[in-house]
Amino acid sequence: MTGRVYLDWNATAPLRAEARAAMVAAMDVVGNPSSVHAEGRASRALVERARAQVAAAFGAEGADIVFTSGATEAAALACAGRGLHGAAIEHDAVRAWIEEDLPVSESGRVVVERPWQSVLQMANSETGVVQELPEGLAVTDATQAFGKLPIAFNWCGAEMALISAHKLGGPKGVGALVLRRGLDVEARMRGGGQEMGRRAGTENVIGIAGFGAAAEAAARDLADGVWERVAEIRSILESAIESSAKKSIFVGKDSPRLPNTLCLATPGWKGETQVMQMDLAGFAISAGSACSSGKVRASRVLTAMGYDESVAAGAIRVSLGPETTAEDVLRFAEAWLKMEKKHRARAA
Amino acid sequence: MTGRVYLDWNATAPLRAEARAAMVAAMDVVGNPSSVHAEGRASRALVERARAQVAAAFGAEGADIVFTSGATEAAALACAGRGLHGAAIEHDAVRAWIEEDLPVSESGRVVVERPWQSVLQMANSETGVVQELPEGLAVTDATQAFGKLPIAFNWCGAEMALISAHKLGGPKGVGALVLRRGLDVEARMRGGGQEMGRRAGTENVIGIAGFGAAAEAAARDLADGVWERVAEIRSILESAIESSAKKSIFVGKDSPRLPNTLCLATPGWKGETQVMQMDLAGFAISAGSACSSGKVRASRVLTAMGYDESVAAGAIRVSLGPETTAEDVLRFAEAWLKMEKKHRARAA
Repeated sequence: MTGRVYLDWNATAPLRAEARAAMVAAMDVVGNPSSVHAEGRASRALVERARAQVAAAFGAEGADIVFTSGATEAAALACAGRGLHGAAIEHDAVRAWIEEDLPVSESGRVVVERPWQSVLQMANSETGVVQELPEGLAVTDATQAFGKLPIAFNWCGAEMALISAHKLGGPKGVGALVLRRGLDVEARMRGGGQEMGRRAGTENVIGIAGFGAAAEAAARDLADGVWERVAEIRSILESAIESSAKKSIFVGKDSPRLPNTLCLATPGWKGETQVMQMDLAGFAISAGSACSSGKVRASRVLTAMGYDESVAAGAIRVSLGPETTAEDVLRFAEAWLKMEKKHRARAA
Repeated sequence: MTGRVYLDWNATAPLRAEARAAMVAAMDVVGNPSSVHAEGRASRALVERARAQVAAAFGAEGADIVFTSGATEAAALACAGRGLHGAAIEHDAVRAWIEEDLPVSESGRVVVERPWQSVLQMANSETGVVQELPEGLAVTDATQAFGKLPIAFNWCGAEMALISAHKLGGPKGVGALVLRRGLDVEARMRGGGQEMGRRAGTENVIGIAGFGAAAEAAARDLADGVWERVAEIRSILESAIESSAKKSIFVGKDSPRLPNTLCLATPGWKGETQVMQMDLAGFAISAGSACSSGKVRASRVLTAMGYDESVAAGAIRVSLGPETTAEDVLRFAEAWLKMEKKHRARAA
């Protein structure tokens, strides 16, 4: 799609070159990782190499990494049947399994009273707001934070973490549950000893190889300061919009945020409409999380933060990545402001 | 691995060229299939194209295809909590969820009395024995049969079927549950509307694209008579062994079988030992299914067919594929017979 600008990195990131190369190389490895012959051992070696890469990138050396089909499966594995408590700003894949009773402040922060019975995300997918994790937290959803923020699972305070490959440049459909050594979970897929009995089924070897390579590359990017440059480009975007769109709200701007995420709410102008108009203009953004998109409704995250319906329904998410340029965001700002002016004219 | 001969196609098949090409092409498609913008729609189109390819190859036009992370997940989705009945020869991923009380005949056939409460595989992974499915069967495990036998799900008599990509030349870690239209299952992964609400989580787009392409190619191979040639090569292998190894038993040979599978039991010579010796000699075979390998024990499948412990512990599986040549199997037969002679000399 020539000329298009992709600003929906929190929905999914482009596949990194390193992940692509690892996946193409893995295509030549024939064996089933559970087979004992040379072909099987070669395949097993790919999975174990990726496990070490993910552990190193996530600061989870010595912890257990259970590869899954994504963070959604990891959430079920970590949360189902445990009666954990959480807030309404958690991802739907977590909300499916929790008591939704933790309060959310206006700035988007969650108050956790009983960490050992609670789940809390590291960063929100819509607003980018980053949480402080309490020591002894049962489960953290690190899906959006992993790769964008410096994280060491071993020091983050949580007992378990959910991670996803495709948010940091790996393939879609791969993720992991990370557990402190000594903890266990009941397998939800059964009938094979894979992943130390916690997750039966032949491993997604090609995808897992891609996850490992992407995680390693993402950690290198982070160390190289790539996300600081992304944050600077986001500032350029925010300044460009701020000066003209006086009615729009920059949600979460005063809280610690992911370096790449801008949640922009314009009361009375539906987020879904903005997404469609910007799509036609050549820009990919989103209203709320991709998983629940298609449904026209107010952002649950913003509602939980205390915003009223007309603000929460008028939110868009613009999320940047390492490949996003200042030119990209200035082109976006120009196009969006033109639409916003038209919207105001119509509404007036 | 130059010079090695891969004869473990039932454990996993090499990736087909068509699957590789589809996967590499899918790597360039950025979007999340749940996103409404152009990038998201392009990604969605890949998933839906693969769905149509799988449905056509499996004779399941009009049925629902729910993509999963493999047949193991499909088995849990189809069987968990339903109290279905099945036989001891089912795969462990099915056995995990059933009452194991259906009788197995000496020829490996299963007698099903209440099909609507039962699960039955189409073909066994170890022996290749093919079942006749009764009309109204609740679930069939088509993992080994799909791609090797002409199947039309719509006419097979079963309400649901489990299928896997990597057994027919697609990637590992992708499969599907196939349901007659009008049936439903309770989602085990929740928090997203993907797969019509039956399986939440961002789709494994690259893997699914590979599954679709592999299924299409597998159906073409089948129509072209590729597996009849495979069956001829298996006959060459069987004749070469039969004439010299008088004590060995060709399990399931008198039953309808998959065209590529030879289950060879040599009483008193452990299957695991044979696998390791043949591996050193350059041949990849297996003892029992890959998923349970590593554990030294008698084949549960053979025990269920009434074979005694020493036969069941002495079984190997040699499984061929479209790329297997007559020269491959003759080299295997020669190497195996040499080992078998040594074994007899030691045992005498």
